[in-house]
Amino acid sequence: MCRNFFATVVAIFAVMPLAAQLKAEWGNIDTRYPMNSTDEVKSVQVSKAVAWKGERVNLQLKVVNPLPKECEVKYVFSELKCGKNVIPAANIVGGFVEPVITDRFIGCGKHEVDAYGENLVADRITAGGSAVIPSGVSRGLWFTVQVPQDVKPGTYKGFVELLCGSKKTKLGYSIKVLDRVLPAPKEWAFHLDLWQNPYAVARVHKVELWSKEHFDALRPYMLKLAAGGQKAITATLIDRPWDGQTYDPFGSLVTWVKRADGSWWYDFTIFDRWVEFMMSCGIDKEITCFSMIPWKLSFRYYDQATHSHKYINCAPGEEAYTRFWGGMLSAFAAHLKEKGWFDKTFISMDERSLQQMQAAIKVIKEYAPGMKISMAGNYHPEIEADIHDYCLDVFAYGAYTPELLARRKAEGKVSTYYTCCSAEYPNVFTFSAPSDAEFIALEALAKGLDGYLRWAYNSWTVTPEEDSRFTAWPAGDTYIIYPFSASSIRWERLVQGIQQYEKYRILLAEAKANGDTSRIDALGKLLESIDIKKISTDSEKIVNGFRNTLNNM
Amino acid sequence: MCRNFFATVVAIFAVMPLAAQLKAEWGNIDTRYPMNSTDEVKSVQVSKAVAWKGERVNLQLKVVNPLPKECEVKYVFSELKCGKNVIPAANIVGGFVEPVITDRFIGCGKHEVDAYGENLVADRITAGGSAVIPSGVSRGLWFTVQVPQDVKPGTYKGFVELLCGSKKTKLGYSIKVLDRVLPAPKEWAFHLDLWQNPYAVARVHKVELWSKEHFDALRPYMLKLAAGGQKAITATLIDRPWDGQTYDPFGSLVTWVKRADGSWWYDFTIFDRWVEFMMSCGIDKEITCFSMIPWKLSFRYYDQATHSHKYINCAPGEEAYTRFWGGMLSAFAAHLKEKGWFDKTFISMDERSLQQMQAAIKVIKEYAPGMKISMAGNYHPEIEADIHDYCLDVFAYGAYTPELLARRKAEGKVSTYYTCCSAEYPNVFTFSAPSDAEFIALEALAKGLDGYLRWAYNSWTVTPEEDSRFTAWPAGDTYIIYPFSASSIRWERLVQGIQQYEKYRILLAEAKANGDTSRIDALGKLLESIDIKKISTDSEKIVNGFRNTLNNM
Repeated sequence: MCRNFFATVVAIFAVMPLAAQLKAEWGNIDTRYPMNSTDEVKSVQVSKAVAWKGERVNLQLKVVNPLPKECEVKYVFSELKCGKNVIPAANIVGGFVEPVITDRFIGCGKHEVDAYGENLVADRITAGGSAVIPSGVSRGLWFTVQVPQDVKPGTYKGFVELLCGSKKTKLGYSIKVLDRVLPAPKEWAFHLDLWQNPYAVARVHKVELWSKEHFDALRPYMLKLAAGGQKAITATLIDRPWDGQTYDPFGSLVTWVKRADGSWWYDFTIFDRWVEFMMSCGIDKEITCFSMIPWKLSFRYYDQATHSHKYINCAPGEEAYTRFWGGMLSAFAAHLKEKGWFDKTFISMDERSLQQMQAAIKVIKEYAPGMKISMAGNYHPEIEADIHDYCLDVFAYGAYTPELLARRKAEGKVSTYYTCCSAEYPNVFTFSAPSDAEFIALEALAKGLDGYLRWAYNSWTVTPEEDSRFTAWPAGDTYIIYPFSASSIRWERLVQGIQQYEKYRILLAEAKANGDTSRIDALGKLLESIDIKKISTDSEKIVNGFRNTLNNM
Repeated sequence: MCRNFFATVVAIFAVMPLAAQLKAEWGNIDTRYPMNSTDEVKSVQVSKAVAWKGERVNLQLKVVNPLPKECEVKYVFSELKCGKNVIPAANIVGGFVEPVITDRFIGCGKHEVDAYGENLVADRITAGGSAVIPSGVSRGLWFTVQVPQDVKPGTYKGFVELLCGSKKTKLGYSIKVLDRVLPAPKEWAFHLDLWQNPYAVARVHKVELWSKEHFDALRPYMLKLAAGGQKAITATLIDRPWDGQTYDPFGSLVTWVKRADGSWWYDFTIFDRWVEFMMSCGIDKEITCFSMIPWKLSFRYYDQATHSHKYINCAPGEEAYTRFWGGMLSAFAAHLKEKGWFDKTFISMDERSLQQMQAAIKVIKEYAPGMKISMAGNYHPEIEADIHDYCLDVFAYGAYTPELLARRKAEGKVSTYYTCCSAEYPNVFTFSAPSDAEFIALEALAKGLDGYLRWAYNSWTVTPEEDSRFTAWPAGDTYIIYPFSASSIRWERLVQGIQQYEKYRILLAEAKANGDTSRIDALGKLLESIDIKKISTDSEKIVNGFRNTLNNM
């Protein structure tokens, strides 16, 4: 423990609004601070956080510009100090939370973009050191402190300095670092799977697909994803596996060529580059390959004889389908073995009929024996044994009995859940409560699941920084981070939840090892008492209660 | 548990030498079967193995050709069956153990290659399905069964079929698979670090450095290394960090150019490709970068003004050294942060003086603050706190007190040991006993260490398949695997030891979690009783005793 040399110094910064210039005070991370009002929001002020070594901690200030004119507000994060020990300022990232257009929950279904309203909601966390705040407007200033793994425990104090014109103010805060280590995200057990869309990055960054510039642009997004503990690389084996459900449709990473003599040639160059790139970002547990059963059963290939793209229409169970996929799977399996990736590659399916999946599994077993299979959708006992990574819809995961989960774990299989357009809670739409995102991992903990899947990490809309609405899906459904590596309240709170999942897991294992679970039992009971049907009102209380109890252990 | 339908069938294959054709019987994995004798070796016959799910198991047959002429002996591994459950034949690799020239232990020091004798020793495990055995010669047939992680427990039975001319024989064996799972090598805690030499691969495979062909040739070697649980990527920052101590000296992965205006330009293209390639092989925990203190303090760079290579001679502590390294380290740190690799990269030093290392550490702290440092050598309390990955010479590791090891572990630091030319035991020279290689990990377990380092995975001699001797080092010191992905008895036994380390670790954690360590205490006592000074005679007894006890738990 280090001494608090700065305790006195910090005290005088506690709450010190800039007279007639700028009002700044501590807010909390459960509030999306309102845009068009200088009204006081009666909310809890949080300027003290608790963290393990290695943990990432979120804090938020509320800043109001009450002046009759706009002001460019600059901000600087100081380093955090505890005696002679330091958490460097470079470990603190964040900035003002900018508004994006959202709508409201209405479930799935094609609709006009503005059919369900046009509301502004603070979500996109910018960076850059300043933002222009219009007259009479309040903004959240959200920032994330990465506590180093090797820092000494103790209470670290620092401040945020705000400048509007020539006037400045400082708001102090503290982070109490406990003498416990949260492992690096790579080591987290929580199985996070958000599907990546490299095509959206190429479009927004105006770079050529799979060029060096494309990979350079992709890297910060994928490092951010890795820092959240992502486990799977999203790979596509065919063109448009989900047809046009995203603004930027997915292309094929595999080149299928039908030669003039009728034989097939498959080239895996792009697949290899994508996988190697993702692995170099630290995401390498699974390569999930979509999809043998696309939403439209029409497969594009290059036809050498006519020098043109052609389509083959065939369905699982048909001989043409078996021929088309059998040859490719066999070549793919051989290629994966050569690369050393066979054991981590999954043929992935989502939300298709049982009959179609059974027919596809038959082809896999015949032409690529031993190849793993993953699936997101409903529960089908008929194929459960074949699915190494099984992700059930939140409405269907009652099918996971404790016995089934225990058996799957013993078999080294992964069992997770997902939410999409059909579930209002828990979810990460732009209109969702921030605490809902943190709750997602707690729900997995409560149900004994390994993790969570979402279909869209960055399938951006046409103007993702302005409008998160997209036809057929609730706003924000298609992406959780913003272009140019801007973060979001949703992403930061999702990762915060995953960190609590890991901390609980570690404490529970330790308690069991010591033969004394009395202290952790209260948390177990809290998890047991969760009623997911009440999450719309309860999530904030649950996640804060869980985190505070955890941080007192 | 599955039933043994095949028990009766297998029994008749137990030992059935081919009359006057070929003598084949079960041997053991502690014997390098003699080359030029048909003498019966009085050795233990092992045809029954025990394994966890996911474990790799070694077995060896002894085959003798008593005929007056050579014979091409073919071999086929059957699948292993337990009722309707199968371990496929594709999971079994191996072949005849071919001889290589070795010498004897004499420590370090430049000498004529044949100064210490020329003995043949069976070490290189070939593959390919057949080998020509000369008249009157015996050979070991070594094979490794990879038990799948998801196989059902039970006793699996299979056989090896041998053919000499038209006569064939079958030898049955069994593997009892326990209901326990050994995690994949990627998850192993044991910190294995064998330095890789990509230059030797380019030479032997006759491919251009860093071409696609080069990476294609490298991949099988690096996958094999990853399957042993390797944690570190060996990277070189300068030309010839160890001067010419290997037949293929190491070049620099970084291009250093001094521009005509005196400024420096650093290009990391090759470094990036090598690191990304290694990560795609599954080796990604550490990038260890050699060396700021090379054996010859002379640094090569490209001089733009004269369009030629030049050398700068400078030593740690000198201003020229600080300038030369400071600029590069600063650019390197920025590059690593962009790539997301900063936290896993180490500036690595080996066996240099304390004064030099202190001076180098000062430069690192000034120009690349936060960069991790690794070191292999003697114990220096003055710099211990700065060394994140500290590997002590086997003669020096008495300096690791339990308190020091516990503190380092709590700080997330790695503590390992190494052996090189100076230590006869435990080591993996070609003349070392096979059990010595398995003992290496047990010694780490006994001393509470995280793992083991060796300086040479594949720094091949000029004819590595024929002669393992190399000037200055005991034979086999410079490589543990052979060209064209042939394995060795030393490599297989080293990995076998690492697997026992992991199994013990898992059982111990479980016993502690259950609050009952009574069953595992015997193993703990066995580890405590090890006297490393008696390893020359004891290693075989120790490793077999430890493994057998472990497999009965």
